[in-house]
Amino acid sequence: MPVNLKELLKKGEKKIVLLVADGVGGVPHPDFGGKTELEAATTPHLDALARRSVLGLMTPVTYGVTPGSGPGHIGLFGYDPEELQIGRGVLEALGVGLHLQEGDVAARANFATQNEDGVIIDRRAGRISTEECERLVGMLSEKIRNIEDVEVILKPGKEHRFVLVLRGPGLGDRVKDTDPQKEGFRAYEPVALEAGSEKTSRILKIFLEQARALIKDEPKANALLLRGFSQSPVLEKFPERYGLRSLAIAIYPMYKGIARLFGFDTPDLEGDLQNEVQCLRENWANYDFFFLHYKDTDKAGEDGDFARKVKCIEYLDRFIPEILALEPGVLVVTGDHSTPSLLHGHSWHPSPVLLYSPFAGSDEAERFTERECRKGYLGQFPACFLMNFILANALRLGKFGA
Amino acid sequence: MPVNLKELLKKGEKKIVLLVADGVGGVPHPDFGGKTELEAATTPHLDALARRSVLGLMTPVTYGVTPGSGPGHIGLFGYDPEELQIGRGVLEALGVGLHLQEGDVAARANFATQNEDGVIIDRRAGRISTEECERLVGMLSEKIRNIEDVEVILKPGKEHRFVLVLRGPGLGDRVKDTDPQKEGFRAYEPVALEAGSEKTSRILKIFLEQARALIKDEPKANALLLRGFSQSPVLEKFPERYGLRSLAIAIYPMYKGIARLFGFDTPDLEGDLQNEVQCLRENWANYDFFFLHYKDTDKAGEDGDFARKVKCIEYLDRFIPEILALEPGVLVVTGDHSTPSLLHGHSWHPSPVLLYSPFAGSDEAERFTERECRKGYLGQFPACFLMNFILANALRLGKFGA
Repeated sequence: MPVNLKELLKKGEKKIVLLVADGVGGVPHPDFGGKTELEAATTPHLDALARRSVLGLMTPVTYGVTPGSGPGHIGLFGYDPEELQIGRGVLEALGVGLHLQEGDVAARANFATQNEDGVIIDRRAGRISTEECERLVGMLSEKIRNIEDVEVILKPGKEHRFVLVLRGPGLGDRVKDTDPQKEGFRAYEPVALEAGSEKTSRILKIFLEQARALIKDEPKANALLLRGFSQSPVLEKFPERYGLRSLAIAIYPMYKGIARLFGFDTPDLEGDLQNEVQCLRENWANYDFFFLHYKDTDKAGEDGDFARKVKCIEYLDRFIPEILALEPGVLVVTGDHSTPSLLHGHSWHPSPVLLYSPFAGSDEAERFTERECRKGYLGQFPACFLMNFILANALRLGKFGA
Repeated sequence: MPVNLKELLKKGEKKIVLLVADGVGGVPHPDFGGKTELEAATTPHLDALARRSVLGLMTPVTYGVTPGSGPGHIGLFGYDPEELQIGRGVLEALGVGLHLQEGDVAARANFATQNEDGVIIDRRAGRISTEECERLVGMLSEKIRNIEDVEVILKPGKEHRFVLVLRGPGLGDRVKDTDPQKEGFRAYEPVALEAGSEKTSRILKIFLEQARALIKDEPKANALLLRGFSQSPVLEKFPERYGLRSLAIAIYPMYKGIARLFGFDTPDLEGDLQNEVQCLRENWANYDFFFLHYKDTDKAGEDGDFARKVKCIEYLDRFIPEILALEPGVLVVTGDHSTPSLLHGHSWHPSPVLLYSPFAGSDEAERFTERECRKGYLGQFPACFLMNFILANALRLGKFGA
């Protein structure tokens, strides 16, 4: 039997900050002197902190595997991302800010173009504008509110994308995608793959019939495709699992949504890191654990913009003294995955991680960079064990065995 | 299927010494120049050995988890401490030097104080003196020798602590603790949690009734509490598992006891490390594997006495030449867990490990310290794989697969 952390938990007073700079890790870029973004950035505060901390490299899922935001955060929260999976539809719903309830079935939806034979000729409906998508989704929402005892919730995303949520009793999520994934085919029927999902299938068929009738004369968006039917995973909430009053401080809906799934309190917040740190300060007395999510590093990496990612890291660095002034018992700085500018997207590279606590141990790493983390005392470890180190350093874990 | 070491074993001549300096690892102490105890110690012999050895850091159980002495040694002996667990009662019995037989049920016992309503008002009976405990346990032993066909064995520990062992046929250990763990409650009944433990429960109830009647007029120790009912784990003995004639050289009963559970020969020995090394020399010809346990480093760490722990390490260092003079094929120096003076107790930090053998490989580590071990060729690995490295370097493992 693996060690059950819950049986070892003990009371503690120390506050914990998990600062996630999304996609902060990178790889050396040949156009920038063979440095990574962290190496190229001027980060006096992180440098000083690194010398008082222990460092390491965390594998988000497993060797060579590039995680999406779901698995990335599942690991950071101490759950096994190979065991616990969040479906595509659920993540999309969280990404547009929908609050899911237990039993809801969510799906990613696309507007598409079909010809007179019902064959899909453009899976993205010519990438219609976001405004066009909002107009169409508004119209569909108006006309289709309920099917049987099931509420139909639609919310637009960017361009041709939107989200469908079915809310009602007796729904399952084992339904076949209608998206054929290639042009030149008809959309599939949302066939139930298990008996428990037959009602979902029936409701979806009615929904599709009604929706298609409403958009059939649209020049581009005359069809729609659904995929990634899923329900929120059943999981032990983070605050109960670790005995920590837990606050998630994030601007982007996706990260608030993931944190909400895990039972974090998620205040409404706009602005940028400055507002997030202010929120941290204001809530300091009322929580034990703070998940602070900084998105901009990932966005710059996704755009392949090395210089901007460097600037985002330097901006982050400015807030380190303010966070330290709160005197956290444990402060961790890391990413949920790497996003090297060189790759224009998420990658499989381990996340550099820094853990500060008076009891952490020590190493000879001088800066918070990938290469220095390689020298770190924490070594290389799977991200889902980060919470073990955090709880230990917060003196919130008792002894295992006599 | 994991590799089965036993199938790979081959004959060898080389002697192996596993020198366990209990709790030797530490963390930097701010009051001592930011050094760990190993860093602060003057250890010319260990330094020289480190330069001829490979080093690493071992995780005793899993990331962030602080092991007790049981799990710490289970790992060192090559067994998985998450799988094989030794119950509290068994460890306590070993700690007071009781030799357990198969089927014995052991429990940790406390004298306690209860009020006239039977409510426990002091779980430790005012920490009565060890002499008082010895008197009371002696009296109980005299009066309660057998219940039905079960022998009752009692042995005093320090202050209010003692150990109860039931020896007889048909006993199980799945019995509820009687210790409520908090003052203000009555002791629980020793209820059987499984059918196979009903006889144990019955015997315990009779024992408790008889014992309570005998101590009811004591001013402080007028009650007793039992917890951690357990039987020795069923396991493949170490000498058979590895094909090694194995001797455990230890002064403290707990470590002799653990080693005896694993099938080591355990000579009676008093004194200190000097006597242990003499015992090693005297038995050199007759065994293949020597587990040599040095306790003082742990005791100093538990007391939070940095300077004394440094002295204990320096004392250990003096014996390295004598051990090397025996020409072991493999010499390992490590701990069963870390005990940083800064934390006044066991901790989750990985154990520094040094492995000397002519075939071990090499690294750039210059001293046997936590930070130097971080640079070591062995990297970071779970303690239960140490025996793999030991057997390999002793040239006692054949090839896996053709």
